[in-house]
Amino acid sequence: MNKTEEPGTDDKPPMRDLLVSAAFELFTERGYENTTIDDIVRLAGVGRRSFFRYFPTKEDVVFPDHEHALAEMVAYLQAAHSDQDPVTTACGAARVVMRMYAENPAFSARRYALTRRVPALKTYEISVVWQYERTLAAYLERRFSHLPDGGVRAYTVAAAVVAAHNYGLRTWLRAGATGDAAASVDPALDMVRRTFHEPEDAVVLIARTGTPLWQVVQKVETALKRDSSGS
Amino acid sequence: MNKTEEPGTDDKPPMRDLLVSAAFELFTERGYENTTIDDIVRLAGVGRRSFFRYFPTKEDVVFPDHEHALAEMVAYLQAAHSDQDPVTTACGAARVVMRMYAENPAFSARRYALTRRVPALKTYEISVVWQYERTLAAYLERRFSHLPDGGVRAYTVAAAVVAAHNYGLRTWLRAGATGDAAASVDPALDMVRRTFHEPEDAVVLIARTGTPLWQVVQKVETALKRDSSGS
Repeated sequence: MNKTEEPGTDDKPPMRDLLVSAAFELFTERGYENTTIDDIVRLAGVGRRSFFRYFPTKEDVVFPDHEHALAEMVAYLQAAHSDQDPVTTACGAARVVMRMYAENPAFSARRYALTRRVPALKTYEISVVWQYERTLAAYLERRFSHLPDGGVRAYTVAAAVVAAHNYGLRTWLRAGATGDAAASVDPALDMVRRTFHEPEDAVVLIARTGTPLWQVVQKVETALKRDSSGS
Repeated sequence: MNKTEEPGTDDKPPMRDLLVSAAFELFTERGYENTTIDDIVRLAGVGRRSFFRYFPTKEDVVFPDHEHALAEMVAYLQAAHSDQDPVTTACGAARVVMRMYAENPAFSARRYALTRRVPALKTYEISVVWQYERTLAAYLERRFSHLPDGGVRAYTVAAAVVAAHNYGLRTWLRAGATGDAAASVDPALDMVRRTFHEPEDAVVLIARTGTPLWQVVQKVETALKRDSSGS
Protein backbone atom coordinates (compact mmCIF):
# COMPACT_ATOMS: atom_id res chain seq x y z
CA MET A 1 0.00 0.00 0.00
CA ASN A 2 1.57 3.26 -1.00
CA LYS A 3 1.29 6.61 0.72
CA THR A 4 -1.47 8.17 -1.40
CA GLU A 5 -3.79 5.27 -0.69
CA GLU A 6 -3.56 5.62 3.07
CA PRO A 7 -6.81 6.63 4.69
CA GLY A 8 -6.98 8.76 7.82
CA THR A 9 -5.71 12.28 8.35
CA ASP A 10 -5.71 13.13 4.62
CA ASP A 11 -9.46 12.48 4.44
CA LYS A 12 -10.22 14.99 7.22
CA PRO A 13 -11.96 17.99 5.66
CA PRO A 14 -9.82 21.13 5.75
CA MET A 15 -10.56 23.67 8.48
CA ARG A 16 -12.19 26.03 6.00
CA ASP A 17 -14.78 23.38 5.03
CA LEU A 18 -15.37 22.53 8.69
CA LEU A 19 -16.19 26.17 9.40
CA VAL A 20 -18.55 26.43 6.42
CA SER A 21 -20.50 23.31 7.34
CA ALA A 22 -20.69 24.27 11.02
CA ALA A 23 -21.95 27.72 10.01
CA PHE A 24 -24.64 26.32 7.71
CA GLU A 25 -25.76 23.80 10.30
CA LEU A 26 -26.31 26.63 12.79
CA PHE A 27 -27.86 29.02 10.25
CA THR A 28 -30.41 26.36 9.32
CA GLU A 29 -31.10 25.38 12.92
CA ARG A 30 -31.40 28.75 14.68
CA GLY A 31 -31.32 31.33 11.88
CA TYR A 32 -28.54 33.46 10.45
CA GLU A 33 -29.02 36.46 12.76
CA ASN A 34 -29.13 34.31 15.89
CA THR A 35 -25.83 32.62 15.10
CA THR A 36 -22.62 34.26 16.33
CA ILE A 37 -19.09 33.63 15.10
CA ASP A 38 -18.39 32.20 18.58
CA ASP A 39 -21.15 29.63 18.03
CA ILE A 40 -19.60 28.64 14.70
CA VAL A 41 -16.05 28.18 15.98
CA ARG A 42 -17.34 26.23 19.02
CA LEU A 43 -19.21 23.76 16.82
CA ALA A 44 -16.29 23.48 14.39
CA GLY A 45 -13.93 22.93 17.32
CA VAL A 46 -11.47 25.63 16.28
CA GLY A 47 -10.34 29.00 17.63
CA ARG A 48 -11.86 32.37 16.79
CA ARG A 49 -8.69 33.44 15.02
CA SER A 50 -9.01 30.52 12.58
CA PHE A 51 -12.39 31.84 11.48
CA PHE A 52 -11.00 35.27 10.65
CA ARG A 53 -8.04 33.74 8.83
CA TYR A 54 -10.51 32.46 6.20
CA PHE A 55 -13.47 34.84 6.47
CA PRO A 56 -13.31 38.58 7.22
CA THR A 57 -17.02 38.68 8.21
CA LYS A 58 -19.95 36.37 8.94
CA GLU A 59 -21.36 37.16 5.48
CA ASP A 60 -18.21 35.80 3.81
CA VAL A 61 -18.71 32.29 5.16
CA VAL A 62 -21.94 32.11 3.11
CA PHE A 63 -20.04 32.67 -0.16
CA PRO A 64 -16.85 30.69 0.43
CA ASP A 65 -16.10 29.94 -3.26
CA HIS A 66 -16.65 33.40 -4.64
CA GLU A 67 -13.01 34.58 -4.68
CA HIS A 68 -12.01 31.34 -6.36
CA ALA A 69 -14.72 31.64 -9.04
CA LEU A 70 -13.75 35.24 -9.72
CA ALA A 71 -10.10 34.26 -10.18
CA GLU A 72 -11.14 31.41 -12.47
CA MET A 73 -13.27 33.79 -14.53
CA VAL A 74 -10.29 36.15 -14.95
CA ALA A 75 -8.10 33.22 -16.03
CA TYR A 76 -10.75 32.07 -18.52
CA LEU A 77 -10.92 35.53 -20.09
CA GLN A 78 -7.14 35.82 -20.27
CA ALA A 79 -6.85 32.46 -22.00
CA ALA A 80 -9.62 33.17 -24.53
CA HIS A 81 -8.61 33.43 -28.18
CA SER A 82 -8.96 36.90 -29.60
CA ASP A 83 -10.54 35.52 -32.77
CA GLN A 84 -13.52 34.20 -30.81
CA ASP A 85 -16.57 36.48 -30.71
CA PRO A 86 -16.30 38.56 -27.49
CA VAL A 87 -19.95 38.02 -26.48
CA THR A 88 -19.52 34.24 -26.79
CA THR A 89 -16.38 34.46 -24.63
CA ALA A 90 -18.23 36.48 -21.97
CA CYS A 91 -20.99 33.84 -21.93
CA GLY A 92 -18.34 31.14 -21.49
CA ALA A 93 -16.83 33.06 -18.58
CA ALA A 94 -20.25 33.27 -16.90
CA ARG A 95 -20.50 29.48 -17.08
CA VAL A 96 -17.56 29.35 -14.63
CA VAL A 97 -19.95 30.62 -11.95
CA MET A 98 -22.65 28.17 -13.03
CA ARG A 99 -20.22 25.27 -12.66
CA MET A 100 -19.28 26.42 -9.15
CA TYR A 101 -22.97 26.21 -8.15
CA ALA A 102 -23.49 22.93 -10.01
CA GLU A 103 -20.52 21.23 -8.34
CA ASN A 104 -22.28 21.32 -4.99
CA PRO A 105 -26.04 21.36 -5.63
CA ALA A 106 -27.14 20.68 -2.03
CA PHE A 107 -25.00 23.52 -0.66
CA SER A 108 -26.16 25.86 -3.44
CA ALA A 109 -29.83 25.14 -2.68
CA ARG A 110 -29.32 25.76 1.06
CA ARG A 111 -27.50 29.01 0.40
CA TYR A 112 -30.22 30.14 -1.99
CA ALA A 113 -32.89 29.56 0.67
CA LEU A 114 -30.76 31.45 3.23
CA THR A 115 -29.98 34.39 0.94
CA ARG A 116 -33.66 34.89 0.13
CA ARG A 117 -34.52 35.16 3.84
CA VAL A 118 -31.70 37.44 5.06
CA PRO A 119 -31.54 40.98 3.58
CA ALA A 120 -27.88 41.46 4.61
CA LEU A 121 -26.93 38.37 2.59
CA LYS A 122 -29.01 39.52 -0.39
CA THR A 123 -27.07 42.83 -0.35
CA TYR A 124 -23.79 40.93 -0.09
CA GLU A 125 -24.79 38.70 -3.00
CA ILE A 126 -25.70 41.68 -5.16
CA SER A 127 -22.24 43.16 -4.65
CA VAL A 128 -20.65 39.77 -5.46
CA VAL A 129 -22.63 39.69 -8.70
CA TRP A 130 -21.45 43.24 -9.40
CA GLN A 131 -17.84 42.03 -9.21
CA TYR A 132 -18.48 39.39 -11.87
CA GLU A 133 -20.21 41.98 -14.01
CA ARG A 134 -17.32 44.44 -13.73
CA THR A 135 -14.82 41.72 -14.64
CA LEU A 136 -16.76 40.87 -17.80
CA ALA A 137 -17.20 44.57 -18.64
CA ALA A 138 -13.46 45.24 -18.37
CA TYR A 139 -12.75 42.37 -20.76
CA LEU A 140 -15.42 43.46 -23.24
CA GLU A 141 -14.26 47.08 -23.10
CA ARG A 142 -10.85 45.96 -24.38
CA ARG A 143 -12.42 43.79 -27.09
CA PHE A 144 -14.84 46.55 -28.18
CA SER A 145 -12.25 49.34 -28.08
CA HIS A 146 -12.46 49.77 -31.87
CA LEU A 147 -16.21 50.47 -31.78
CA PRO A 148 -17.53 54.02 -31.40
CA ASP A 149 -19.98 52.81 -28.72
CA GLY A 150 -17.55 50.22 -27.32
CA GLY A 151 -17.71 51.48 -23.72
CA VAL A 152 -21.46 51.47 -23.27
CA ARG A 153 -21.75 48.25 -25.29
CA ALA A 154 -19.24 46.52 -22.98
CA TYR A 155 -21.12 47.41 -19.79
CA THR A 156 -24.50 46.61 -21.35
CA VAL A 157 -23.46 43.20 -22.68
CA ALA A 158 -21.80 42.35 -19.34
CA ALA A 159 -25.01 43.22 -17.48
CA ALA A 160 -27.11 41.22 -19.96
CA VAL A 161 -24.83 38.15 -19.68
CA VAL A 162 -24.92 38.23 -15.88
CA ALA A 163 -28.70 38.80 -15.75
CA ALA A 164 -29.40 35.94 -18.16
CA HIS A 165 -26.98 33.63 -16.33
CA ASN A 166 -28.58 34.44 -12.97
CA TYR A 167 -32.07 33.94 -14.36
CA GLY A 168 -31.13 30.47 -15.57
CA LEU A 169 -29.39 29.69 -12.30
CA ARG A 170 -32.40 30.83 -10.22
CA THR A 171 -34.70 28.63 -12.33
CA TRP A 172 -32.46 25.66 -11.51
CA LEU A 173 -32.20 26.58 -7.79
CA ARG A 174 -35.96 27.07 -7.42
CA ALA A 175 -36.50 23.62 -8.86
CA GLY A 176 -34.41 22.31 -5.95
CA ALA A 177 -31.06 22.23 -7.80
CA THR A 178 -31.76 18.64 -8.78
CA GLY A 179 -31.56 18.74 -12.57
CA ASP A 180 -28.82 19.87 -14.95
CA ALA A 181 -27.86 23.50 -14.25
CA ALA A 182 -26.55 23.94 -17.79
CA ALA A 183 -29.96 23.04 -19.22
CA SER A 184 -31.35 26.17 -17.55
CA VAL A 185 -28.37 28.49 -17.96
CA ASP A 186 -27.25 27.74 -21.52
CA PRO A 187 -30.47 28.71 -23.35
CA ALA A 188 -30.54 31.97 -21.35
CA LEU A 189 -26.94 32.81 -22.33
CA ASP A 190 -27.70 31.81 -25.89
CA MET A 191 -30.45 34.43 -26.09
CA VAL A 192 -27.90 37.12 -25.16
CA ARG A 193 -25.34 35.76 -27.60
CA ARG A 194 -27.83 35.82 -30.46
CA THR A 195 -29.08 39.29 -29.53
CA PHE A 196 -25.68 40.97 -29.38
CA HIS A 197 -23.70 38.90 -31.84
CA GLU A 198 -23.57 40.84 -35.07
CA PRO A 199 -21.78 38.99 -37.85
CA GLU A 200 -19.23 41.29 -39.44
CA ASP A 201 -19.35 41.74 -43.17
CA ALA A 202 -23.07 41.06 -43.49
CA VAL A 203 -26.21 42.79 -44.62
CA VAL A 204 -29.30 42.89 -42.41
CA LEU A 205 -32.51 43.84 -44.13
CA ILE A 206 -35.76 44.37 -42.24
CA ALA A 207 -38.98 44.48 -44.22
CA ARG A 208 -42.66 44.54 -43.24
CA THR A 209 -44.56 41.48 -44.37
CA GLY A 210 -46.58 42.28 -47.46
CA THR A 211 -43.88 44.57 -48.86
CA PRO A 212 -43.85 44.19 -52.68
CA LEU A 213 -40.99 41.93 -53.72
CA TRP A 214 -39.56 44.42 -56.24
CA GLN A 215 -39.09 46.99 -53.46
CA VAL A 216 -37.23 44.52 -51.25
CA VAL A 217 -35.05 43.38 -54.16
CA GLN A 218 -34.12 46.97 -54.89
CA LYS A 219 -33.05 47.49 -51.28
CA VAL A 220 -31.08 44.24 -51.17
CA GLU A 221 -29.29 45.07 -54.40
CA THR A 222 -28.24 48.49 -53.10
CA ALA A 223 -27.08 47.08 -49.75
CA LEU A 224 -25.06 44.20 -51.22
CA LYS A 225 -23.28 46.49 -53.66
CA ARG A 226 -22.47 49.12 -51.02
CA ASP A 227 -21.03 46.63 -48.52
CA SER A 228 -19.20 44.34 -50.93
CA SER A 229 -15.52 45.07 -51.47
CA GLY A 230 -15.41 42.68 -54.40
CA SER A 231 -17.48 44.83 -56.75
CA MET B 1 -50.54 90.64 -0.97
CA ASN B 2 -52.07 87.21 -0.75
CA LYS B 3 -50.94 84.31 1.35
CA THR B 4 -48.92 82.42 -1.25
CA GLU B 5 -46.74 85.45 -1.98
CA GLU B 6 -45.66 85.93 1.64
CA PRO B 7 -41.98 85.35 2.17
CA GLY B 8 -40.60 84.03 5.45
CA THR B 9 -41.26 80.69 7.08
CA ASP B 10 -42.31 79.00 3.82
CA ASP B 11 -38.87 79.67 2.32
CA LYS B 12 -37.09 77.85 5.15
CA PRO B 13 -35.73 74.56 3.79
CA PRO B 14 -37.54 71.59 5.28
CA MET B 15 -35.80 69.65 8.04
CA ARG B 16 -35.02 66.78 5.69
CA ASP B 17 -33.03 69.09 3.37
CA LEU B 18 -31.26 70.66 6.36
CA LEU B 19 -30.10 67.22 7.47
CA VAL B 20 -28.88 66.28 3.99
CA SER B 21 -26.86 69.46 3.52
CA ALA B 22 -25.40 69.28 7.05
CA ALA B 23 -24.41 65.67 6.39
CA PHE B 24 -22.72 66.47 3.07
CA GLU B 25 -20.89 69.44 4.57
CA LEU B 26 -19.41 67.15 7.23
CA PHE B 27 -18.72 64.24 4.85
CA THR B 28 -16.75 66.56 2.59
CA GLU B 29 -14.93 68.26 5.46
CA ARG B 30 -13.91 65.32 7.68
CA GLY B 31 -14.83 62.23 5.64
CA TYR B 32 -17.82 59.91 5.71
CA GLU B 33 -16.46 57.44 8.27
CA ASN B 34 -15.40 60.18 10.66
CA THR B 35 -18.85 61.78 10.73
CA THR B 36 -21.38 60.52 13.28
CA ILE B 37 -25.14 60.99 13.23
CA ASP B 38 -24.67 63.12 16.36
CA ASP B 39 -22.35 65.45 14.40
CA ILE B 40 -24.99 65.78 11.67
CA VAL B 41 -27.91 66.60 13.96
CA ARG B 42 -25.76 69.07 15.92
CA LEU B 43 -24.84 71.00 12.76
CA ALA B 44 -28.43 70.85 11.45
CA GLY B 45 -29.70 72.06 14.83
CA VAL B 46 -32.24 69.28 15.26
CA GLY B 47 -32.70 66.31 17.58
CA ARG B 48 -31.43 62.79 17.00
CA ARG B 49 -34.94 61.48 16.66
CA SER B 50 -35.60 63.82 13.72
CA PHE B 51 -32.74 62.20 11.82
CA PHE B 52 -34.16 58.72 12.23
CA ARG B 53 -37.62 59.92 11.26
CA TYR B 54 -36.25 60.56 7.76
CA PHE B 55 -33.28 58.22 7.46
CA PRO B 56 -33.02 54.72 8.96
CA THR B 57 -29.19 54.71 8.64
CA LYS B 58 -26.29 57.04 7.85
CA GLU B 59 -26.09 55.52 4.35
CA ASP B 60 -29.68 56.60 3.61
CA VAL B 61 -28.88 60.29 3.96
CA VAL B 62 -26.54 59.96 0.96
CA PHE B 63 -29.42 58.82 -1.29
CA PRO B 64 -32.32 60.99 -0.07
CA ASP B 65 -34.30 60.99 -3.34
CA HIS B 66 -34.10 57.30 -4.10
CA GLU B 67 -37.49 56.28 -2.64
CA HIS B 68 -39.13 59.13 -4.52
CA ALA B 69 -37.47 58.20 -7.83
CA LEU B 70 -38.48 54.56 -7.39
CA ALA B 71 -42.11 55.57 -6.75
CA GLU B 72 -42.02 57.84 -9.79
CA MET B 73 -40.64 55.01 -11.91
CA VAL B 74 -43.48 52.72 -10.81
CA ALA B 75 -46.04 55.44 -11.64
CA TYR B 76 -44.43 55.98 -15.07
CA LEU B 77 -44.68 52.27 -15.86
CA GLN B 78 -48.28 52.07 -14.67
CA ALA B 79 -49.27 55.03 -16.84
CA ALA B 80 -47.50 53.72 -19.97
CA HIS B 81 -49.70 52.75 -22.90
CA SER B 82 -49.72 49.06 -23.63
CA ASP B 83 -49.37 49.73 -27.37
CA GLN B 84 -45.94 51.30 -26.83
CA ASP B 85 -42.97 48.99 -27.33
CA PRO B 86 -42.05 47.61 -23.85
CA VAL B 87 -38.30 48.20 -24.29
CA THR B 88 -38.95 51.86 -25.20
CA THR B 89 -41.15 52.20 -22.10
CA ALA B 90 -38.42 50.70 -19.89
CA CYS B 91 -35.92 53.20 -21.33
CA GLY B 92 -38.35 56.03 -20.57
CA ALA B 93 -38.70 54.79 -16.99
CA ALA B 94 -34.90 54.80 -16.58
CA ARG B 95 -34.89 58.46 -17.61
CA VAL B 96 -36.80 59.20 -14.38
CA VAL B 97 -33.59 58.42 -12.49
CA MET B 98 -31.52 60.49 -14.91
CA ARG B 99 -33.79 63.51 -14.33
CA MET B 100 -33.43 63.14 -10.56
CA TYR B 101 -29.64 63.41 -10.95
CA ALA B 102 -29.90 66.22 -13.51
CA GLU B 103 -32.18 68.34 -11.30
CA ASN B 104 -29.38 68.87 -8.81
CA PRO B 105 -26.07 68.54 -10.67
CA ALA B 106 -23.83 69.92 -7.89
CA PHE B 107 -25.29 67.50 -5.32
CA SER B 108 -25.05 64.60 -7.79
CA ALA B 109 -21.38 65.32 -8.47
CA ARG B 110 -20.56 65.51 -4.73
CA ARG B 111 -22.37 62.27 -4.07
CA TYR B 112 -20.58 60.56 -6.95
CA ALA B 113 -17.20 61.59 -5.54
CA LEU B 114 -18.25 60.35 -2.09
CA THR B 115 -19.64 57.03 -3.32
CA ARG B 116 -16.45 56.25 -5.22
CA ARG B 117 -14.37 56.71 -2.06
CA VAL B 118 -16.51 54.83 0.49
CA PRO B 119 -17.02 51.07 -0.09
CA ALA B 120 -20.09 50.93 2.20
CA LEU B 121 -21.78 53.56 0.04
CA LYS B 122 -20.82 51.76 -3.15
CA THR B 123 -22.49 48.61 -1.77
CA TYR B 124 -25.55 50.63 -0.81
CA GLU B 125 -25.70 52.17 -4.29
CA ILE B 126 -25.45 48.78 -5.97
CA SER B 127 -28.49 47.59 -4.01
CA VAL B 128 -30.37 50.79 -4.91
CA VAL B 129 -29.62 50.11 -8.58
CA TRP B 130 -30.83 46.55 -8.09
CA GLN B 131 -34.22 47.89 -6.93
CA TYR B 132 -34.61 49.92 -10.12
CA GLU B 133 -33.62 46.87 -12.15
CA ARG B 134 -36.14 44.63 -10.40
CA THR B 135 -38.91 47.18 -10.92
CA LEU B 136 -38.21 47.30 -14.67
CA ALA B 137 -37.93 43.50 -14.83
CA ALA B 138 -41.33 43.03 -13.15
CA TYR B 139 -42.93 45.38 -15.69
CA LEU B 140 -41.22 43.70 -18.65
CA GLU B 141 -42.13 40.23 -17.39
CA ARG B 142 -45.83 41.20 -17.62
CA ARG B 143 -45.35 42.71 -21.09
CA PHE B 144 -43.35 39.71 -22.35
CA SER B 145 -45.65 37.10 -20.81
CA HIS B 146 -46.74 35.90 -24.27
CA LEU B 147 -43.16 35.09 -25.33
CA PRO B 148 -41.66 31.65 -24.71
CA ASP B 149 -38.48 33.30 -23.35
CA GLY B 150 -40.38 36.20 -21.74
CA GLY B 151 -38.95 35.71 -18.24
CA VAL B 152 -35.28 35.66 -19.11
CA ARG B 153 -35.81 38.38 -21.72
CA ALA B 154 -37.44 40.64 -19.11
CA TYR B 155 -34.55 40.34 -16.64
CA THR B 156 -31.94 40.68 -19.40
CA VAL B 157 -33.49 43.79 -20.96
CA ALA B 158 -33.95 45.37 -17.50
CA ALA B 159 -30.27 44.78 -16.71
CA ALA B 160 -29.22 46.16 -20.11
CA VAL B 161 -31.37 49.29 -19.71
CA VAL B 162 -29.99 49.99 -16.23
CA ALA B 163 -26.38 49.33 -17.28
CA ALA B 164 -26.64 51.61 -20.33
CA HIS B 165 -28.37 54.33 -18.29
CA ASN B 166 -25.70 54.17 -15.59
CA TYR B 167 -22.90 54.25 -18.16
CA GLY B 168 -24.34 57.42 -19.66
CA LEU B 169 -24.88 58.94 -16.23
CA ARG B 170 -21.31 58.13 -15.11
CA THR B 171 -19.95 59.75 -18.28
CA TRP B 172 -21.87 62.91 -17.37
CA LEU B 173 -20.82 62.78 -13.69
CA ARG B 174 -17.14 62.23 -14.54
CA ALA B 175 -17.25 65.32 -16.74
CA GLY B 176 -18.29 67.28 -13.62
CA ALA B 177 -22.07 67.09 -14.19
CA THR B 178 -21.89 70.37 -16.07
CA GLY B 179 -23.37 69.51 -19.47
CA ASP B 180 -26.70 68.00 -20.46
CA ALA B 181 -27.23 64.63 -18.76
CA ALA B 182 -29.66 63.52 -21.47
CA ALA B 183 -26.98 63.99 -24.14
CA SER B 184 -24.97 61.22 -22.43
CA VAL B 185 -27.82 58.98 -21.31
CA ASP B 186 -30.12 59.02 -24.35
CA PRO B 187 -27.69 57.58 -26.95
CA ALA B 188 -26.82 54.81 -24.45
CA LEU B 189 -30.49 53.92 -23.95
CA ASP B 190 -31.04 54.13 -27.67
CA MET B 191 -28.43 51.44 -28.27
CA VAL B 192 -30.40 49.08 -25.99
CA ARG B 193 -33.70 50.00 -27.62
CA ARG B 194 -32.34 49.28 -31.10
CA THR B 195 -30.73 46.03 -29.96
CA PHE B 196 -33.81 44.53 -28.30
CA HIS B 197 -36.61 46.13 -30.26
CA GLU B 198 -37.89 43.54 -32.68
CA PRO B 199 -40.73 44.79 -34.83
CA GLU B 200 -43.53 42.25 -34.76
CA ASP B 201 -44.86 41.03 -38.06
CA ALA B 202 -41.54 41.50 -39.86
CA VAL B 203 -39.00 39.53 -41.79
CA VAL B 204 -35.30 39.68 -40.93
CA LEU B 205 -32.94 38.36 -43.55
CA ILE B 206 -29.21 38.05 -43.01
CA ALA B 207 -26.97 37.51 -46.00
CA ARG B 208 -23.21 37.53 -46.50
CA THR B 209 -21.99 40.30 -48.75
CA GLY B 210 -21.26 38.92 -52.19
CA THR B 211 -24.23 36.51 -52.08
CA PRO B 212 -25.73 36.26 -55.57
CA LEU B 213 -28.83 38.43 -55.80
CA TRP B 214 -31.02 35.62 -57.16
CA GLN B 215 -30.32 33.53 -54.03
CA VAL B 216 -31.28 36.39 -51.73
CA VAL B 217 -34.43 37.11 -53.73
CA GLN B 218 -35.46 33.49 -53.43
CA LYS B 219 -35.07 33.59 -49.67
CA VAL B 220 -36.93 36.88 -49.36
CA GLU B 221 -39.79 35.59 -51.46
CA THR B 222 -40.16 32.47 -49.35
CA ALA B 223 -40.01 34.46 -46.09
CA LEU B 224 -42.51 37.11 -47.13
CA LYS B 225 -45.01 34.49 -48.29
CA ARG B 226 -44.67 32.37 -45.16
CA ASP B 227 -45.18 35.30 -42.75
CA SER B 228 -47.86 37.18 -44.65
CA SER B 229 -51.43 36.44 -43.59
CA GLY B 230 -52.79 38.20 -46.69
CA SER B 231 -51.66 35.58 -49.17
